[in-house]
Order: sequence, then structure tokens, then C-alpha cells
Amino acid sequence: ARPKVGYFYSGKSQFNLFSEEVKRIKVETMMSLPIVVTEETSVYDAIVTLFLEDVGTIFVASKGYLSGVISRKDFLKSAIGGTDMNKVPVGMVMTRRPNILTIGLKDSVLDAAIKILDHEVDSLPVVEREIVEGKEQLKIIGRISKSNVTKLFVELCKA
Amino acid sequence: ARPKVGYFYSGKSQFNLFSEEVKRIKVETMMSLPIVVTEETSVYDAIVTLFLEDVGTIFVASKGYLSGVISRKDFLKSAIGGTDMNKVPVGMVMTRRPNILTIGLKDSVLDAAIKILDHEVDSLPVVEREIVEGKEQLKIIGRISKSNVTKLFVELCKA
Repeated sequence: ARPKVGYFYSGKSQFNLFSEEVKRIKVETMMSLPIVVTEETSVYDAIVTLFLEDVGTIFVASKGYLSGVISRKDFLKSAIGGTDMNKVPVGMVMTRRPNILTIGLKDSVLDAAIKILDHEVDSLPVVEREIVEGKEQLKIIGRISKSNVTKLFVELCKA
Repeated sequence: ARPKVGYFYSGKSQFNLFSEEVKRIKVETMMSLPIVVTEETSVYDAIVTLFLEDVGTIFVASKGYLSGVISRKDFLKSAIGGTDMNKVPVGMVMTRRPNILTIGLKDSVLDAAIKILDHEVDSLPVVEREIVEGKEQLKIIGRISKSNVTKLFVELCKA
């Protein structure tokens, strides 16, 4: 390549500048509202909520704090597994804490995207940690999904 | 739902340069393999394929060409609707051409992302058009999803 003189245009440094800016974009600016049901909700009612709200994942709360998550894939698994959807509560089929991933309001969208890809989930609950009677509880604040990341990607390209 | 808060960045020129570069990234560089079943496949077998391949959407082919698509959401709908999943073929529950969206190999990932968001789907079949006996047919080449866009977003940030 010809030696660069004076100002030169470098694809690489441009992407570096870009990524530094993007790393500052926080989850709180891109998240959606969380859709939450209680553990006692029947699988059937939870699926109806999933369709009405048109989301891929529902969060489950117990006493106001996050206790589990359940996705379209989990529901489909219990549907073909012959679960009695009107009788079984979501608490019995959800993925329960501590086996779930979460993200904070002030974390970057990039970190959320990396977590989503690494663990092959569609979305993450956005939470705030609280200590209640000596125990860490998670308050559900929002939801960040591949859709939110895709939206950010499009917004950045259109900027 | 609360109005979405977009991301606004004042230093536009840097993002303009970025977005010009990104617009050149083509679907063919980021797509995944398509998972395809025939119209005669039972809904049950198609769901099993969905789980084995761990995809959100399956494409349906007739005589080797795209005839429909069926998503996790469509399957869940037929599961709670009481469809006899072992008897009903996917051809009866899929979304059929021409009511499906597609994208080309040489289209940009940005265009794919915009189509995905605008039409609230998880993925698009990547196709090549062929004229067979005077009729336009679509050869299924790949699959591009919100996961692929999220992956590109992460790669650009890490670059």
C-alpha cells in the first residue's frame, strides 16, 4: 500500500471510534417493558399473555421479585410434552434463579448482546439488586432482547 | 407500552462514516444455514427439527423451492389450538407464499434488519430467484435472523 501522508482515512480507527461510542450506550436507553406473571399463573394463561403482549420471554415474580423466566421455546417444550396447561403453574416449568442471566440498567447494550449470544437466549431481564432481610433480591425493571439490539443497530446505521 | 427512547448522538459525522461502511456488509457474509422441511412433514416432526437444530423458524419447501415459513410462535399457536400434531402436515399451518418476506444474498444486513423489525419476524429466508416454466421460484440459500444481526453488532464493537 502507498504510504499515508497527512490526513488519511482508516477503516479500522473509524470502527474503534465507533465502538468506543457504542460501548457507552446503556441498557436503560434501549430496553422494553418487562412482561411479568406470578408463579401461580397457569401455563395456559402465561402463553395467552405471551401472545397478547407479543414477546418471546416472560418473567416470573414471587413476592414482587424475579424468581424465574420462561420462553416461547420452554412453552413449546411443555406443550408437546403433554403438560396439562390449564393445571400446571408456570412456577413448575420455568427456569428458576439462580440459573438465569440478568443485566443491570447501567450495563452497556454491548454487554447485554454478548450475554444473549453466549448463552443462546432471546432476552434478559433488566434488574436492580436489593437486599431484603439479608438476602439479595432482584427487582424487575425492564427487558432487553435481540430485537432491541437489532433496533439499535438500525438506528446507528440511519444516524 | 411506554414510548421507546431512541439513542441520539450529536457527533453525527463519525456515525455517518460508520454507517456507510456497514451498509456494504452483505447478507451472504452473515447468514446461517437454512433448516428446511417439506410440506408433508407432520407438525410434530417439524417441532422436533426446530429443537434439534435450535432455530426459531423453519422454512418449508415444495419441489425444492420455498413455499412457506413456520416459526416457534406459529407452532405454539397450533399446540394450544389443539391441532393433532402427529397428523397435521406443516403445509396446513405454515405461512404460505406470497405472504412471506425474503431477502437476497447481495442485499445488506441493514436491509434485512429493517425488514425483520418492520414486519416483526425473527428471521428471513435468503433466496435466489429462478424462472421455472415461466414462473418465479425461490431457491432457499440461507437464513438471516436477529441473532445474526446481534452477532454483527458485537463483532463491529469488538473490531
